[in-house]
Amino acid sequence: MNFKMVFNVIGRICQTAGVLLLVPAVTAIIYSETTQLFALLITAVASFVLGTLLTIICKTKNHIIYAKEGFAIVAAAWIVTSVIGAIPFVISGEIPSFVDAFFETVSGFTTTGASILTNVEAMSKSMLLWRSFTHWVGGMGVLVFVMAILPNISDRSMHIMRAEMPGPVVGKLVPKAKDTAKILYLIYIALTLVQIVLLWAGDMDLYDSLIHSFGTAGTGGFGIKADGCASYSPYSQWVITIFMLIFGVNFNLYYLILIRKFKAVFKNTELRWYLVIVLISTGIITANILSISGSFSKALRDAAFQVSSIITTTGYSTTNFDLWPSLSKGVLFILMFSGACAGSTCGGLKVTRTVTLVKSVGREFKRMLHPRSVSAVVSDGKSMSETEVGSVNVYLTIYMLCIMVIFLLVSFEPLGLETNLTATVSCFNNVGPGLAGVGPAGSYAAYSDFSTFVLSIAMLLGRLEIFPLLIAFFPATWAKRKKAAN
Amino acid sequence: MNFKMVFNVIGRICQTAGVLLLVPAVTAIIYSETTQLFALLITAVASFVLGTLLTIICKTKNHIIYAKEGFAIVAAAWIVTSVIGAIPFVISGEIPSFVDAFFETVSGFTTTGASILTNVEAMSKSMLLWRSFTHWVGGMGVLVFVMAILPNISDRSMHIMRAEMPGPVVGKLVPKAKDTAKILYLIYIALTLVQIVLLWAGDMDLYDSLIHSFGTAGTGGFGIKADGCASYSPYSQWVITIFMLIFGVNFNLYYLILIRKFKAVFKNTELRWYLVIVLISTGIITANILSISGSFSKALRDAAFQVSSIITTTGYSTTNFDLWPSLSKGVLFILMFSGACAGSTCGGLKVTRTVTLVKSVGREFKRMLHPRSVSAVVSDGKSMSETEVGSVNVYLTIYMLCIMVIFLLVSFEPLGLETNLTATVSCFNNVGPGLAGVGPAGSYAAYSDFSTFVLSIAMLLGRLEIFPLLIAFFPATWAKRKKAAN
Repeated sequence: MNFKMVFNVIGRICQTAGVLLLVPAVTAIIYSETTQLFALLITAVASFVLGTLLTIICKTKNHIIYAKEGFAIVAAAWIVTSVIGAIPFVISGEIPSFVDAFFETVSGFTTTGASILTNVEAMSKSMLLWRSFTHWVGGMGVLVFVMAILPNISDRSMHIMRAEMPGPVVGKLVPKAKDTAKILYLIYIALTLVQIVLLWAGDMDLYDSLIHSFGTAGTGGFGIKADGCASYSPYSQWVITIFMLIFGVNFNLYYLILIRKFKAVFKNTELRWYLVIVLISTGIITANILSISGSFSKALRDAAFQVSSIITTTGYSTTNFDLWPSLSKGVLFILMFSGACAGSTCGGLKVTRTVTLVKSVGREFKRMLHPRSVSAVVSDGKSMSETEVGSVNVYLTIYMLCIMVIFLLVSFEPLGLETNLTATVSCFNNVGPGLAGVGPAGSYAAYSDFSTFVLSIAMLLGRLEIFPLLIAFFPATWAKRKKAAN
Repeated sequence: MNFKMVFNVIGRICQTAGVLLLVPAVTAIIYSETTQLFALLITAVASFVLGTLLTIICKTKNHIIYAKEGFAIVAAAWIVTSVIGAIPFVISGEIPSFVDAFFETVSGFTTTGASILTNVEAMSKSMLLWRSFTHWVGGMGVLVFVMAILPNISDRSMHIMRAEMPGPVVGKLVPKAKDTAKILYLIYIALTLVQIVLLWAGDMDLYDSLIHSFGTAGTGGFGIKADGCASYSPYSQWVITIFMLIFGVNFNLYYLILIRKFKAVFKNTELRWYLVIVLISTGIITANILSISGSFSKALRDAAFQVSSIITTTGYSTTNFDLWPSLSKGVLFILMFSGACAGSTCGGLKVTRTVTLVKSVGREFKRMLHPRSVSAVVSDGKSMSETEVGSVNVYLTIYMLCIMVIFLLVSFEPLGLETNLTATVSCFNNVGPGLAGVGPAGSYAAYSDFSTFVLSIAMLLGRLEIFPLLIAFFPATWAKRKKAAN
């Protein structure tokens, strides 16, 4: 393990975190929130200084990243930024308990949107902006992580580019991972700006537009109103709905559109399934809630909004869907697992994995009927290798085991199975709200420090596609490197 | 598809069902229940005649069974017997609705134990005996099915003997599948008799001993008292607990004990894990319910009983565990998935699959740390092939997809997520009781005909390890056979 290099990178991460904290600091100046300003500045300075020291102490020429280092860095990046990001909440006294503040920040950076706040409207403007800003930054982080870091690690690391990302392999579009990241950032920033303008043009002021655009871009879901997005105009709700769906698409496709490769976009298997799932779910729920919604337009709007919010693991709500009939809740519960497209900012299994799983099942049936027949799982016109399909199946296994373990740990809480189970699923898939106690109207405040911490880890696990985090804490990872590890 | 042969076998199944119905008929005579006697006899005669006709019409020399025929026969066997078995309930008027009667009988033959009865104590002795007798017959059916039929079908049929059954391959112990079945039956019958005697020696009369021994042997769980087994003596409860665990063990192992191959038994990976899981779960729950149970002995007894009941997918209860703290309910909920050992009468994923899944995950981690290392999943000292491990992972995928679809269909019911989800999981894994509305104190009566039917199918799917039933309804199965199908 190349510790020097790892700590050097962590140092740079601390510096970045310090700089990022200046954004809410500016907000604090605008709204003259002195306590918050102090809390933000002191944290910013501290982490910047600490980071600089780390980079100086851990200077190293050796910059080769092996799987281990990659995983360690990725895990560290999310944990360190979350710790730093939580401090201002504690210092400013707006979230006194560090565990809670850590949960809130992890929830922010992992773009989950689960909150322990019981009265969000009582928070200061600057802290709420920081909270939502973490979504936006986290979303960026996810993009680089998924697009630039993962593919450069070992082949077996979830086959992220092949099994997870049908369509173009980014690395081939542009030579360097760095350039890839740049392009993705530009698309990400551009889309965000468009949404800000569209929302601002509606009934939202600039502040609200920023908050909700950050939350949508990162598919996070932190709101600033007790009733979520219910009080905004249908126009604003539709804008958010559409942009949630847009940010749920594989960013490779936007790049393809930029370079005018429209055909590849329309041919994309995952995109098709993604849209089909959204349409069907919206249809079912619209019909199911028609009677309680009053008008068809309201039913359709609520259904479309909630479906887009859950499948993209954003977590905004325009209505308390915990009061919906069982069928609608059942559909949403299952959407929590699927998630949207790989290569987007959202969590969950990802549509492409879900599709591969369904196809691998169909293939298994064929095999049983015609033992000698040879059939492959096809995606984007190319047939996937056994290893690819296999690793996706193993991923589901790991995914389910994680949910099981987290659920058991959270079950120490006397909050009932529905609350504990949906809280687990929601956090692990980076959705945000669950059902019952942790529904849109509820909050995670009822959980003990222990469970709050467990759920924080769950969010990180889900965000980092399980492996990096777990492996980073594998004893073997820290042992002296053997030849085999290269 | 060799229809003649299939219908010939179905004919013989009808004859058998007719004969089996004479057992409750005798009970009806003893307790002089004339209506029930009439209902049972008329059904018995009718199905025997129908069966005989079928065998005569569909005489055939060709007795070769291909995968398709195998699946079709197995699926038909369970469905036909369930339909015939349901008729007496309807004729006698004890379960007027055929859908409900079908559910109850499927629940019996699949050794699930889920019931739509709201007042079981109002039922007649003969019908309750028939209900429990279906468990015992179903358990036998499962044994032959798992031990004799499946292995003789195509290699890929779930790798039942290899991936599912660590330890000796039955086919090798004795040349013919028929002889295998005989041996298994003798063990099954012997164990049942021992339990009957032990229970009779306690506070149960012969009738109750028969009912509960049938229910335990088939790991079914139909009771005859509103409070389950709560009113029986601790002695009886412990006897049932121990026998539930005994019937949850791979029957191959009993054969090994008979031929004095004790070493192989102690080395059996699945058995070890099975016992470890039971001990740990019992320990956790005992500690968790100590405060509400009054005494340690009661807490231990209840914990051991419920854990054994759920992991072996029997479904008996000595207390309303739906009132237990979240942790205990969480543990039971997860045990519903694992189930006990392969090659036993119980349902669920089976411990061996669960263990293989866990190991395949551990292997994946090794691979990610040391991409070039080669490590295999080891079971019973032998390392499993990639195909074996792979097919178990694919099985989990199919298993999860089934649960998802069934859950969605059942979600049309306004009974809440916890009820609908646990009902799905409980029926699909052939457990019986779920939580909340379908908890030990509840019943499936609240479900509509549609859901009752869906859940009946769920029980059959789970019982037949998914493939046979689904494949039997595959259009391709009924198409003219191509060379590839052999």
